Amino acid sequence: MKINVLLSPISVDELYFTGKTTVVIDILRATTTIISALGNGAKEIIPVATVEFAVKVSGGMFGGQTLLGGERNTKKIEGFALGNSPMEYSEDIISGKSIILYTTNGTKAIVKAKFSGELFICAFSNISALAEHLVKLNKDVEILCAGRLNNFSMEDTVCAGKLINEIVKLNNDTILTDSAIASVSLNKSFGKSLLKMLKETEHGKLLIENGYEEDLKFCSKLNTTDSIPYFTGNILKLITNNKDISSSEHEN
Amino acid sequence: MKINVLLSPISVDELYFTGKTTVVIDILRATTTIISALGNGAKEIIPVATVEFAVKVSGGMFGGQTLLGGERNTKKIEGFALGNSPMEYSEDIISGKSIILYTTNGTKAIVKAKFSGELFICAFSNISALAEHLVKLNKDVEILCAGRLNNFSMEDTVCAGKLINEIVKLNNDTILTDSAIASVSLNKSFGKSLLKMLKETEHGKLLIENGYEEDLKFCSKLNTTDSIPYFTGNILKLITNNKDISSSEHEN
Repeated sequence: MKINVLLSPISVDELYFTGKTTVVIDILRATTTIISALGNGAKEIIPVATVEFAVKVSGGMFGGQTLLGGERNTKKIEGFALGNSPMEYSEDIISGKSIILYTTNGTKAIVKAKFSGELFICAFSNISALAEHLVKLNKDVEILCAGRLNNFSMEDTVCAGKLINEIVKLNNDTILTDSAIASVSLNKSFGKSLLKMLKETEHGKLLIENGYEEDLKFCSKLNTTDSIPYFTGNILKLITNNKDISSSEHEN
Repeated sequence: MKINVLLSPISVDELYFTGKTTVVIDILRATTTIISALGNGAKEIIPVATVEFAVKVSGGMFGGQTLLGGERNTKKIEGFALGNSPMEYSEDIISGKSIILYTTNGTKAIVKAKFSGELFICAFSNISALAEHLVKLNKDVEILCAGRLNNFSMEDTVCAGKLINEIVKLNNDTILTDSAIASVSLNKSFGKSLLKMLKETEHGKLLIENGYEEDLKFCSKLNTTDSIPYFTGNILKLITNNKDISSSEHEN
Protein backbone atom coordinates (compact mmCIF):
# COMPACT_ATOMS: atom_id res chain seq x y z
CA MET A 1 0.00 0.00 0.00
CA LYS A 2 1.72 3.13 -1.28
CA ILE A 3 0.70 6.54 0.02
CA ASN A 4 1.46 9.81 -1.74
CA VAL A 5 0.53 13.33 -0.68
CA LEU A 6 -0.14 16.10 -3.19
CA LEU A 7 0.51 19.33 -1.31
CA SER A 8 -1.61 21.30 -3.75
CA PRO A 9 -4.01 20.37 -6.58
CA ILE A 10 -1.97 22.44 -9.05
CA SER A 11 0.83 19.82 -9.15
CA VAL A 12 -1.18 17.45 -11.33
CA ASP A 13 -3.92 17.50 -13.95
CA GLU A 14 -7.38 15.93 -13.77
CA LEU A 15 -6.36 12.77 -15.62
CA TYR A 16 -3.70 12.04 -12.99
CA PHE A 17 -6.46 10.79 -10.72
CA THR A 18 -8.02 8.37 -13.22
CA GLY A 19 -8.91 5.18 -11.39
CA LYS A 20 -6.95 6.14 -8.26
CA THR A 21 -8.08 6.04 -4.64
CA THR A 22 -8.05 9.66 -3.56
CA VAL A 23 -8.62 11.44 -0.26
CA VAL A 24 -9.33 15.18 -0.34
CA ILE A 25 -8.49 17.36 2.67
CA ASP A 26 -9.46 20.99 3.20
CA ILE A 27 -9.48 21.48 6.97
CA LEU A 28 -10.43 25.19 6.83
CA ARG A 29 -13.18 24.56 6.09
CA ALA A 30 -14.70 22.70 3.14
CA THR A 31 -14.07 19.09 4.07
CA THR A 32 -14.82 19.69 7.76
CA THR A 33 -18.10 21.27 6.64
CA ILE A 34 -18.95 18.45 4.21
CA ILE A 35 -18.42 15.77 6.87
CA SER A 36 -20.48 17.76 9.36
CA ALA A 37 -23.33 18.50 6.93
CA LEU A 38 -23.71 14.90 5.78
CA GLY A 39 -23.44 13.70 9.38
CA ASN A 40 -26.25 16.10 10.25
CA GLY A 41 -28.55 14.53 7.68
CA ALA A 42 -28.01 16.46 4.45
CA LYS A 43 -29.24 14.23 1.61
CA GLU A 44 -26.20 14.96 -0.58
CA ILE A 45 -23.63 17.61 -1.40
CA ILE A 46 -22.82 18.65 -4.94
CA PRO A 47 -19.34 20.19 -4.99
CA VAL A 48 -18.75 22.66 -7.82
CA ALA A 49 -15.67 24.43 -9.13
CA THR A 50 -17.26 27.79 -10.02
CA VAL A 51 -19.93 30.04 -8.53
CA GLU A 52 -21.56 30.26 -11.96
CA PHE A 53 -21.93 26.49 -12.10
CA ALA A 54 -23.40 26.45 -8.60
CA VAL A 55 -26.12 28.86 -9.69
CA LYS A 56 -26.70 26.94 -12.94
CA VAL A 57 -27.05 23.59 -11.13
CA SER A 58 -29.38 25.06 -8.52
CA GLY A 59 -31.67 26.40 -11.27
CA GLY A 60 -32.48 22.86 -12.39
CA MET A 61 -33.32 21.59 -8.92
CA PHE A 62 -36.40 21.74 -6.73
CA GLY A 63 -36.58 24.93 -4.70
CA GLY A 64 -36.74 24.41 -0.97
CA GLN A 65 -35.03 21.05 -1.21
CA THR A 66 -31.81 22.59 -2.46
CA LEU A 67 -29.52 25.04 -0.70
CA LEU A 68 -26.59 26.98 -2.12
CA GLY A 69 -23.60 27.10 0.20
CA GLY A 70 -20.02 28.26 0.13
CA GLU A 71 -17.59 31.11 0.31
CA ARG A 72 -15.29 33.33 -1.68
CA ASN A 73 -12.32 34.76 0.23
CA THR A 74 -13.70 33.27 3.47
CA LYS A 75 -17.06 35.13 3.17
CA LYS A 76 -20.56 33.91 2.23
CA ILE A 77 -21.45 34.54 -1.40
CA GLU A 78 -24.28 37.01 -2.07
CA GLY A 79 -27.54 35.19 -2.69
CA PHE A 80 -26.29 31.93 -1.18
CA ALA A 81 -28.25 30.48 1.77
CA LEU A 82 -25.18 29.26 3.62
CA GLY A 83 -21.51 30.16 3.98
CA ASN A 84 -18.65 27.73 4.58
CA SER A 85 -18.83 27.58 8.37
CA PRO A 86 -19.44 23.97 9.47
CA MET A 87 -21.61 25.23 12.31
CA GLU A 88 -24.12 26.74 9.88
CA TYR A 89 -24.92 23.26 8.61
CA SER A 90 -27.06 22.21 11.59
CA GLU A 91 -29.62 19.43 11.42
CA ASP A 92 -32.67 21.73 11.52
CA ILE A 93 -31.41 23.67 8.51
CA ILE A 94 -29.96 21.01 6.24
CA SER A 95 -31.61 17.70 7.10
CA GLY A 96 -32.85 16.00 3.92
CA LYS A 97 -31.58 18.81 1.70
CA SER A 98 -29.31 18.76 -1.32
CA ILE A 99 -26.51 21.28 -0.91
CA ILE A 100 -24.61 22.78 -3.81
CA LEU A 101 -21.25 23.80 -2.40
CA TYR A 102 -18.63 26.14 -3.82
CA THR A 103 -15.46 27.02 -1.92
CA THR A 104 -12.21 28.69 -2.95
CA ASN A 105 -9.98 25.63 -2.57
CA GLY A 106 -11.82 22.55 -1.28
CA THR A 107 -14.59 21.92 -3.78
CA LYS A 108 -12.28 22.80 -6.66
CA ALA A 109 -9.88 20.09 -5.43
CA ILE A 110 -12.72 17.55 -5.24
CA VAL A 111 -13.90 18.38 -8.76
CA LYS A 112 -10.33 18.16 -10.06
CA ALA A 113 -10.07 14.62 -8.66
CA LYS A 114 -13.41 13.54 -10.11
CA PHE A 115 -11.94 10.78 -12.29
CA SER A 116 -10.71 8.92 -9.20
CA GLY A 117 -11.82 5.30 -8.83
CA GLU A 118 -12.80 6.12 -5.26
CA LEU A 119 -12.77 9.58 -3.74
CA PHE A 120 -13.17 10.14 -0.01
CA ILE A 121 -13.42 13.27 2.11
CA CYS A 122 -11.21 13.71 5.15
CA ALA A 123 -10.86 16.19 8.01
CA PHE A 124 -9.57 15.87 11.56
CA SER A 125 -13.12 14.83 12.54
CA ASN A 126 -13.11 11.49 10.69
CA ILE A 127 -9.44 10.44 10.46
CA SER A 128 -9.71 7.17 12.43
CA ALA A 129 -12.82 5.96 10.61
CA LEU A 130 -11.32 6.79 7.21
CA ALA A 131 -7.95 5.20 8.03
CA GLU A 132 -9.71 1.97 8.95
CA HIS A 133 -11.72 2.07 5.74
CA LEU A 134 -8.65 2.70 3.57
CA VAL A 135 -6.74 -0.14 5.17
CA LYS A 136 -9.66 -2.46 4.41
CA LEU A 137 -9.66 -1.27 0.78
CA ASN A 138 -5.89 -1.94 0.69
CA LYS A 139 -5.22 0.17 -2.41
CA ASP A 140 -2.57 2.82 -3.07
CA VAL A 141 -3.79 6.19 -1.82
CA GLU A 142 -3.34 9.72 -3.12
CA ILE A 143 -3.98 12.30 -0.41
CA LEU A 144 -4.87 15.58 -2.07
CA CYS A 145 -4.41 18.66 0.10
CA ALA A 146 -6.65 21.44 -1.18
CA GLY A 147 -4.00 23.91 -0.05
CA ARG A 148 -4.51 27.63 -0.34
CA LEU A 149 -4.60 29.35 -3.72
CA ASN A 150 -2.35 26.66 -5.26
CA ASN A 151 0.09 26.85 -2.38
CA PHE A 152 1.02 24.80 0.66
CA SER A 153 -1.36 24.66 3.59
CA MET A 154 0.03 23.62 6.96
CA GLU A 155 -3.30 22.41 8.34
CA ASP A 156 -4.11 20.18 5.35
CA THR A 157 -0.60 18.69 5.39
CA VAL A 158 -0.70 18.02 9.14
CA CYS A 159 -4.04 16.26 8.64
CA ALA A 160 -2.54 14.18 5.82
CA GLY A 161 0.30 13.20 8.17
CA LYS A 162 -2.13 12.25 10.92
CA LEU A 163 -4.19 10.13 8.53
CA ILE A 164 -1.02 8.35 7.32
CA ASN A 165 -0.02 7.69 10.93
CA GLU A 166 -3.36 5.99 11.56
CA ILE A 167 -3.04 3.92 8.38
CA VAL A 168 0.51 2.85 9.25
CA LYS A 169 -0.64 1.74 12.71
CA LEU A 170 -3.11 -0.63 11.02
CA ASN A 171 -0.93 -1.71 8.09
CA ASN A 172 2.79 -2.32 8.51
CA ASP A 173 3.30 -2.85 4.81
CA THR A 174 3.05 0.79 3.76
CA ILE A 175 5.34 2.66 1.36
CA LEU A 176 5.51 6.44 1.78
CA THR A 177 6.68 8.96 -0.83
CA ASP A 178 8.80 11.98 0.15
CA SER A 179 5.75 14.20 0.53
CA ALA A 180 4.05 11.56 2.67
CA ILE A 181 7.15 11.31 4.90
CA ALA A 182 7.23 15.12 5.15
CA SER A 183 3.54 15.19 6.13
CA VAL A 184 4.09 12.63 8.89
CA SER A 185 7.01 14.71 10.16
CA LEU A 186 4.97 17.93 10.13
CA ASN A 187 2.16 16.20 12.03
CA LYS A 188 4.72 15.11 14.63
CA SER A 189 5.97 18.71 14.97
CA PHE A 190 2.66 20.61 14.76
CA GLY A 191 -0.15 18.10 15.27
CA LYS A 192 -0.17 17.82 19.06
CA SER A 193 -2.43 20.79 19.74
CA LEU A 194 -4.58 21.16 16.65
CA LEU A 195 -6.34 24.34 17.79
CA LYS A 196 -3.02 26.02 18.57
CA MET A 197 -1.70 24.95 15.16
CA LEU A 198 -4.80 26.24 13.34
CA LYS A 199 -4.61 29.60 15.12
CA GLU A 200 -1.02 30.03 13.95
CA THR A 201 -1.56 29.19 10.28
CA GLU A 202 -1.99 31.92 7.67
CA HIS A 203 -5.50 30.71 6.85
CA GLY A 204 -6.41 30.41 10.54
CA LYS A 205 -5.30 33.97 11.20
CA LEU A 206 -7.35 35.21 8.24
CA LEU A 207 -10.45 33.42 9.53
CA ILE A 208 -9.98 34.90 13.01
CA GLU A 209 -9.67 38.37 11.44
CA ASN A 210 -12.97 37.78 9.65
CA GLY A 211 -14.77 36.67 12.81
CA TYR A 212 -14.62 32.89 12.36
CA GLU A 213 -12.58 31.93 15.45
CA GLU A 214 -15.30 29.49 16.56
CA ASP A 215 -14.86 27.63 13.27
CA LEU A 216 -11.23 26.94 14.18
CA LYS A 217 -12.34 25.25 17.39
CA PHE A 218 -14.83 23.15 15.45
CA CYS A 219 -12.32 22.24 12.73
CA SER A 220 -9.68 21.20 15.29
CA LYS A 221 -11.78 18.45 16.88
CA LEU A 222 -10.34 15.00 16.31
CA ASN A 223 -12.30 11.84 15.53
CA THR A 224 -15.74 13.09 16.46
CA THR A 225 -17.53 11.01 13.82
CA ASP A 226 -17.45 7.82 11.77
CA SER A 227 -18.94 9.61 8.75
CA ILE A 228 -17.03 9.05 5.53
CA PRO A 229 -18.27 11.10 2.58
CA TYR A 230 -17.48 9.63 -0.83
CA PHE A 231 -17.91 11.02 -4.31
CA THR A 232 -20.05 9.19 -6.85
CA GLY A 233 -21.91 10.50 -9.89
CA ASN A 234 -20.73 14.05 -9.14
CA ILE A 235 -22.35 13.90 -5.72
CA LEU A 236 -20.98 13.46 -2.19
CA LYS A 237 -22.82 11.03 0.07
CA LEU A 238 -21.99 9.12 3.22
CA ILE A 239 -20.83 5.55 3.13
CA THR A 240 -23.58 3.66 4.93
CA ASN A 241 -22.33 0.66 6.89
CA ASN A 242 -19.44 0.57 4.45
CA LYS A 243 -21.77 -0.92 1.87
CA ASP A 244 -22.29 1.97 -0.48
CA ILE A 245 -19.21 1.45 -2.58
CA SER A 246 -18.46 -1.39 -4.87
CA SER A 247 -15.02 -2.00 -3.41
CA SER A 248 -16.57 -2.88 -0.07
CA GLU A 249 -17.73 -6.14 -1.59
CA HIS A 250 -14.16 -7.30 -1.34
CA GLU A 251 -13.74 -6.34 2.26
CA ASN A 252 -13.01 -9.10 4.73
CA MET B 1 12.13 40.64 6.42
CA LYS B 2 9.47 38.16 5.32
CA ILE B 3 10.49 34.77 3.96
CA ASN B 4 8.24 32.55 1.88
CA VAL B 5 9.00 29.15 0.38
CA LEU B 6 7.44 27.96 -2.87
CA LEU B 7 7.59 24.17 -2.71
CA SER B 8 7.31 23.91 -6.49
CA PRO B 9 7.48 26.41 -9.38
CA ILE B 10 4.02 25.33 -10.56
CA SER B 11 2.29 27.19 -7.69
CA VAL B 12 2.83 30.59 -9.27
CA ASP B 13 3.25 32.21 -12.68
CA GLU B 14 6.23 34.12 -14.05
CA LEU B 15 4.83 37.53 -13.17
CA TYR B 16 4.62 36.53 -9.50
CA PHE B 17 8.36 37.09 -9.25
CA THR B 18 8.37 40.60 -10.74
CA GLY B 19 10.74 42.74 -8.71
CA LYS B 20 11.09 40.16 -5.93
CA THR B 21 14.25 38.83 -4.31
CA THR B 22 14.28 35.15 -5.22
CA VAL B 23 16.49 32.22 -4.29
CA VAL B 24 16.33 29.10 -6.47
CA ILE B 25 17.24 25.70 -5.00
CA ASP B 26 17.67 22.44 -6.90
CA ILE B 27 20.00 20.34 -4.76
CA LEU B 28 19.97 17.31 -7.11
CA ARG B 29 21.68 18.67 -9.04
CA ALA B 30 21.29 21.89 -11.04
CA THR B 31 22.02 24.54 -8.42
CA THR B 32 24.83 22.49 -6.84
CA THR B 33 26.32 22.18 -10.34
CA ILE B 34 25.91 25.89 -11.14
CA ILE B 35 27.66 26.96 -7.93
CA SER B 36 30.45 24.47 -8.54
CA ALA B 37 30.94 25.41 -12.21
CA LEU B 38 31.11 29.15 -11.59
CA GLY B 39 33.38 28.55 -8.60
CA ASN B 40 35.66 26.54 -10.91
CA GLY B 41 36.02 29.47 -13.28
CA ALA B 42 33.24 29.13 -15.84
CA LYS B 43 32.73 32.56 -17.42
CA GLU B 44 28.94 32.37 -17.21
CA ILE B 45 26.04 29.96 -17.27
CA ILE B 46 23.00 30.48 -19.46
CA PRO B 47 20.08 28.54 -17.97
CA VAL B 48 17.41 27.52 -20.49
CA ALA B 49 13.95 26.01 -20.16
CA THR B 50 14.01 23.73 -23.23
CA VAL B 51 16.57 21.56 -24.98
CA GLU B 52 15.59 23.19 -28.29
CA PHE B 53 16.42 26.63 -26.91
CA ALA B 54 19.76 25.34 -25.61
CA VAL B 55 20.70 24.19 -29.11
CA LYS B 56 19.41 27.43 -30.66
CA VAL B 57 21.41 29.63 -28.27
CA SER B 58 24.57 27.58 -28.76
CA GLY B 59 24.31 28.04 -32.52
CA GLY B 60 24.81 31.78 -32.17
CA MET B 61 27.87 31.50 -29.94
CA PHE B 62 31.55 30.92 -30.57
CA GLY B 63 32.42 27.26 -30.82
CA GLY B 64 35.02 26.09 -28.34
CA GLN B 65 34.17 28.84 -25.90
CA THR B 66 30.66 27.47 -25.35
CA LEU B 67 29.62 24.14 -23.88
CA LEU B 68 26.20 22.56 -23.80
CA GLY B 69 25.38 20.90 -20.49
CA GLY B 70 22.45 19.28 -18.77
CA GLU B 71 20.23 16.28 -18.41
CA ARG B 72 16.87 14.82 -19.22
CA ASN B 73 15.59 12.19 -16.75
CA THR B 74 18.95 12.30 -14.92
CA LYS B 75 20.96 11.40 -18.06
CA LYS B 76 23.21 13.49 -20.31
CA ILE B 77 21.48 14.71 -23.47
CA GLU B 78 22.77 13.33 -26.76
CA GLY B 79 25.14 15.77 -28.41
CA PHE B 80 25.73 17.75 -25.21
CA ALA B 81 29.31 18.04 -23.94
CA LEU B 82 28.39 17.75 -20.28
CA GLY B 83 25.69 16.15 -18.13
CA ASN B 84 24.33 17.53 -14.87
CA SER B 85 26.87 16.01 -12.52
CA PRO B 86 28.67 18.80 -10.60
CA MET B 87 31.90 16.79 -10.75
CA GLU B 88 31.99 17.00 -14.54
CA TYR B 89 32.38 20.77 -14.29
CA SER B 90 36.06 20.74 -13.28
CA GLU B 91 38.37 23.69 -13.78
CA ASP B 92 40.33 22.17 -16.67
CA ILE B 93 37.15 21.58 -18.65
CA ILE B 94 35.05 24.67 -17.97
CA SER B 95 37.42 27.50 -16.99
CA GLY B 96 36.63 30.60 -19.04
CA LYS B 97 33.80 28.91 -20.89
CA SER B 98 30.16 29.89 -21.35
CA ILE B 99 27.88 27.01 -20.43
CA ILE B 100 24.36 26.66 -21.74
CA LEU B 101 22.54 24.55 -19.17
CA TYR B 102 19.26 22.67 -19.46
CA THR B 103 17.93 20.50 -16.62
CA THR B 104 14.53 18.92 -15.99
CA ASN B 105 13.62 21.05 -12.98
CA GLY B 106 16.34 23.48 -11.94
CA THR B 107 16.98 25.64 -15.00
CA LYS B 108 13.25 25.76 -15.73
CA ALA B 109 12.69 27.17 -12.23
CA ILE B 110 15.40 29.80 -12.78
CA VAL B 111 13.91 30.84 -16.12
CA LYS B 112 10.42 31.01 -14.58
CA ALA B 113 11.74 33.42 -11.94
CA LYS B 114 13.51 35.62 -14.50
CA PHE B 115 11.49 38.75 -13.69
CA SER B 116 12.85 38.78 -10.12
CA GLY B 117 14.53 42.00 -8.99
CA GLU B 118 17.41 39.87 -7.71
CA LEU B 119 17.75 36.14 -8.28
CA PHE B 120 20.32 34.03 -6.43
CA ILE B 121 21.31 30.38 -6.66
CA CYS B 122 21.48 28.25 -3.53
CA ALA B 123 22.60 24.74 -2.61
CA PHE B 124 23.94 23.22 0.59
CA SER B 125 27.41 24.31 -0.55
CA ASN B 126 26.81 28.07 -0.24
CA ILE B 127 24.08 28.47 2.42
CA SER B 128 26.08 30.49 4.94
CA ALA B 129 27.47 32.91 2.36
CA LEU B 130 24.06 33.45 0.80
CA ALA B 131 22.30 33.88 4.16
CA GLU B 132 24.78 36.60 5.08
CA HIS B 133 24.25 38.31 1.73
CA LEU B 134 20.44 38.19 2.02
CA VAL B 135 20.52 39.63 5.52
CA LYS B 136 22.62 42.52 4.23
CA LEU B 137 20.14 43.10 1.40
CA ASN B 138 17.34 43.06 4.02
CA LYS B 139 14.52 42.49 1.54
CA ASP B 140 11.65 40.00 1.62
CA VAL B 141 12.77 36.68 0.14
CA GLU B 142 11.01 34.08 -2.00
CA ILE B 143 12.75 30.73 -1.85
CA LEU B 144 11.80 28.73 -4.92
CA CYS B 145 12.30 24.99 -4.63
CA ALA B 146 12.70 23.52 -8.11
CA GLY B 147 10.99 20.39 -6.82
CA ARG B 148 10.54 17.35 -9.00
CA LEU B 149 8.18 17.36 -11.96
CA ASN B 150 5.98 20.00 -10.31
CA ASN B 151 5.92 18.13 -7.02
CA PHE B 152 7.49 18.41 -3.60
CA SER B 153 11.17 17.64 -3.20
CA MET B 154 12.44 16.79 0.28
CA GLU B 155 16.03 17.83 -0.41
CA ASP B 156 15.15 21.26 -1.81
CA THR B 157 12.78 21.93 1.09
CA VAL B 158 15.34 20.87 3.71
CA CYS B 159 17.86 23.23 2.07
CA ALA B 160 15.28 26.04 2.17
CA GLY B 161 14.78 25.36 5.89
CA LYS B 162 18.52 25.38 6.52
CA LEU B 163 18.94 28.69 4.65
CA ILE B 164 16.10 30.22 6.68
CA ASN B 165 17.74 29.01 9.91
CA GLU B 166 20.95 30.80 8.95
CA ILE B 167 19.05 33.98 8.06
CA VAL B 168 17.10 33.92 11.34
CA LYS B 169 20.35 33.54 13.30
CA LEU B 170 21.56 36.81 11.74
CA ASN B 171 18.25 38.69 11.75
CA ASN B 172 15.81 38.39 14.65
CA ASP B 173 13.16 40.42 12.85
CA THR B 174 12.09 37.73 10.39
CA ILE B 175 8.52 36.77 9.49
CA LEU B 176 8.00 33.24 8.17
CA THR B 177 5.03 32.00 6.13
CA ASP B 178 3.52 28.54 6.73
CA SER B 179 5.68 26.94 4.05
CA ALA B 180 8.78 28.60 5.51
CA ILE B 181 7.88 27.28 8.99
CA ALA B 182 7.32 23.82 7.51
CA SER B 183 10.71 23.96 5.74
CA VAL B 184 12.48 24.86 8.98
CA SER B 185 10.74 21.97 10.71
CA LEU B 186 11.70 19.51 7.95
CA ASN B 187 15.32 20.67 8.16
CA LYS B 188 15.21 20.03 11.90
CA SER B 189 13.88 16.50 11.30
CA PHE B 190 15.90 15.50 8.22
CA GLY B 191 18.78 17.98 7.89
CA LYS B 192 21.23 16.52 10.40
CA SER B 193 22.86 14.02 8.07
CA LEU B 194 22.49 15.44 4.59
CA LEU B 195 23.98 12.46 2.78
CA LYS B 196 21.65 10.06 4.62
CA MET B 197 18.71 12.29 3.77
CA LEU B 198 19.68 12.51 0.09
CA LYS B 199 20.07 8.74 -0.16
CA GLU B 200 16.55 8.24 1.18
CA THR B 201 14.77 10.72 -1.11
CA GLU B 202 12.98 9.57 -4.25
CA HIS B 203 15.32 11.60 -6.44
CA GLY B 204 18.38 10.38 -4.57
CA LYS B 205 17.36 6.76 -5.04
CA LEU B 206 16.83 7.35 -8.76
CA LEU B 207 20.29 8.89 -9.11
CA ILE B 208 21.88 5.95 -7.27
CA GLU B 209 20.05 3.55 -9.61
CA ASN B 210 21.51 5.45 -12.56
CA GLY B 211 25.06 5.33 -11.22
CA TYR B 212 25.33 8.81 -9.71
CA GLU B 213 25.91 7.94 -6.04
CA GLU B 214 29.09 10.05 -5.96
CA ASP B 215 26.98 13.07 -6.94
CA LEU B 216 24.93 12.63 -3.76
CA LYS B 217 28.10 12.89 -1.67
CA PHE B 218 29.12 16.03 -3.55
CA CYS B 219 25.66 17.61 -3.26
CA SER B 220 25.46 16.91 0.49
CA LYS B 221 28.52 18.99 1.41
CA LEU B 222 27.67 22.02 3.51
CA ASN B 223 29.22 25.47 3.20
CA THR B 224 32.18 24.56 1.04
CA THR B 225 32.21 27.88 -0.83
CA ASP B 226 31.39 31.59 -0.65
CA SER B 227 30.32 31.62 -4.30
CA ILE B 228 26.92 33.20 -4.88
CA PRO B 229 25.65 32.96 -8.44
CA TYR B 230 23.13 35.62 -9.44
CA PHE B 231 21.02 36.04 -12.54
CA THR B 232 21.33 39.14 -14.67
CA GLY B 233 20.56 39.69 -18.36
CA ASN B 234 19.55 36.01 -18.73
CA ILE B 235 22.97 34.91 -17.53
CA LEU B 236 24.25 33.48 -14.24
CA LYS B 237 27.47 34.92 -12.88
CA LEU B 238 29.17 35.05 -9.51
CA ILE B 239 28.85 38.03 -7.24
CA THR B 240 32.42 39.34 -6.99
CA ASN B 241 33.25 40.88 -3.64
CA ASN B 242 29.55 41.53 -3.30
CA LYS B 243 29.89 44.40 -5.74
CA ASP B 244 28.30 43.01 -8.85
CA ILE B 245 24.71 43.84 -8.00
CA SER B 246 23.18 47.26 -7.70
CA SER B 247 21.70 46.52 -4.29
CA SER B 248 25.14 46.03 -2.83
CA GLU B 249 25.69 49.77 -3.10
CA HIS B 250 23.36 50.12 -0.14
CA GLU B 251 25.14 47.58 1.97
CA ASN B 252 26.64 48.65 5.27
